[in-house]
Amino acid sequence: MTATEKADRKKTRIVALCGGVGGAKLALGLSRLLGSDLTVIVNTGDDFEHLGLQISPDLDTVLYTLSGLANRELGWGRADESWNFMEVLRDLGSETWFQLGDRDLALHVQRTHQLKSGRSLTSFMAEVANSFGIAAQILPMTDDTMRTTVVTTDGVMPFQRYFVERRCAPVVEKIVFDGASGTKPTAQVTAALNDPRLRAVVICPSNPFLSIDPILSVPGLRRLIEVAGVPVVAVSPIIGGKAVKGPTDKIMAELGVPTTSRAIVERYGGLLDGLVVDVADGDEVANLSIETHIVPTLMKTEADRDGLARSVLDFVDRLSMATGSREVGCR
Amino acid sequence: MTATEKADRKKTRIVALCGGVGGAKLALGLSRLLGSDLTVIVNTGDDFEHLGLQISPDLDTVLYTLSGLANRELGWGRADESWNFMEVLRDLGSETWFQLGDRDLALHVQRTHQLKSGRSLTSFMAEVANSFGIAAQILPMTDDTMRTTVVTTDGVMPFQRYFVERRCAPVVEKIVFDGASGTKPTAQVTAALNDPRLRAVVICPSNPFLSIDPILSVPGLRRLIEVAGVPVVAVSPIIGGKAVKGPTDKIMAELGVPTTSRAIVERYGGLLDGLVVDVADGDEVANLSIETHIVPTLMKTEADRDGLARSVLDFVDRLSMATGSREVGCR
Repeated sequence: MTATEKADRKKTRIVALCGGVGGAKLALGLSRLLGSDLTVIVNTGDDFEHLGLQISPDLDTVLYTLSGLANRELGWGRADESWNFMEVLRDLGSETWFQLGDRDLALHVQRTHQLKSGRSLTSFMAEVANSFGIAAQILPMTDDTMRTTVVTTDGVMPFQRYFVERRCAPVVEKIVFDGASGTKPTAQVTAALNDPRLRAVVICPSNPFLSIDPILSVPGLRRLIEVAGVPVVAVSPIIGGKAVKGPTDKIMAELGVPTTSRAIVERYGGLLDGLVVDVADGDEVANLSIETHIVPTLMKTEADRDGLARSVLDFVDRLSMATGSREVGCR
Repeated sequence: MTATEKADRKKTRIVALCGGVGGAKLALGLSRLLGSDLTVIVNTGDDFEHLGLQISPDLDTVLYTLSGLANRELGWGRADESWNFMEVLRDLGSETWFQLGDRDLALHVQRTHQLKSGRSLTSFMAEVANSFGIAAQILPMTDDTMRTTVVTTDGVMPFQRYFVERRCAPVVEKIVFDGASGTKPTAQVTAALNDPRLRAVVICPSNPFLSIDPILSVPGLRRLIEVAGVPVVAVSPIIGGKAVKGPTDKIMAELGVPTTSRAIVERYGGLLDGLVVDVADGDEVANLSIETHIVPTLMKTEADRDGLARSVLDFVDRLSMATGSREVGCR
């Protein structure tokens, strides 16, 4: 084996599972440390067709975040945006509950056109990420259609209707991933999780119920993680008993799940080797059955994101060494 | 018969046949004089699908012109336009030969969505014209698909490729209206031409070969004009042996047709009762077999457009009275 081949066998690659804004912040930190050694597998359960356009909210959030284009004030869309399209759409009496910026629209029109021409979402996003100067691999969890559907006391509704149009107001009774059984992980997702250079799988601090569950609901994907033989760690989206962003705690309460990091671990049902928890919740996870890493997890600044990413990598390497030692001990 | 019923029977309504920019100027003049008594039947042979969007160049030119939104400098699109969508499209490596403004795009996205949902182009345009405050009726010549295709020495190409991408550079050998035989006039076009209140049919100074021929190629539409029993007049697009706008004279030369108003009359093959000709071409039409009306036809200002529209209406009424006298004489 040459030196190059040995280097190729080094465990350098991280796979991150990610939803939208909260998770993308950690993905950005990881991408700054890892560059092309990072693969982000992104939830597409929130994807939907709107005005005939194919919208992929989480993929685009990751894309814009990793390319430095994200609008941090709004928490969605691009920073350098204009809204003339929406203004005319309003004049035309069209639906305007879902805001589409003029620049953002280019991505949707191009994606819709390419998907209708038979191209895969994976292939399209790879080209876009490349043209946006992103070194990391951004992968849809599947190229097949799964639709996160929210069963509420106000009726059953597609996720974006619940999340954007209804502003999460309806009380959630159940979350369903329509079409999940007909989906499969893409060749690229499978390859990333089968890669002998895989160092760890990191579950970003996204909503477990809305962003990570759909990814783990792609038949076979969870198994790929389980058999990868690398540490699997999650960063808890809970800080001080509350979700930092979005409807996570409201939904957990409505589903009768306590808003705790412990509940997050239970949600992932044995998949995790370790949990990264905020210092505010250190006591709560004191006697968890998995390893914990207690650090500040709130990401407000660039330094926060980089710091948490570095801390997560230190943690997975610590877990790796521990596992490695145990493995050696067993022989 | 009540007074209202008698008024209903008055011949107040004008149907104009129209292509893009040149024709739309007269349509604007007519619409200012006639309001809801004007129906503009518009060429849709130039319509095409671009990036998955349904584009109707002539319909939109008429729409923007009649609503006062047209970009007079560019000669296409809207005056109050921004170009952020195009900028990102370029970054994404997409086709950019056809410019789509951010505001203009709302019309294309909405039209594409509604047509794909099964709505007719006629119904969609009626709603849009209404929301743009236009009193005149703007009708596609057909709701079926006809595609103007240009056979050139550089090969066969769809009209927009020839006109926009190739800037009319290829030498035209033939113009074909693909799918024409499968089209039919809409119920609205038929009703407008069958209307007992019809006063005249005015062919706007559009390109006869590219803009008016497609309209007359819709099976049955020419016959509806012929049997309407009202004066049919054209405004010649030729001034001083040259076309005011666009590739009309270049194409006429390439097709071996002299660039004269006489050639325009021959092109319309017996359909016309009268021709409105510019003062610069008065001599040339001296011994035409149809009535001529020699006035300045160049429309640079609002006053020009209104003046020509008024002059055209005077001309058709003069023709009506002459016909009326003859008819009385025959009985």
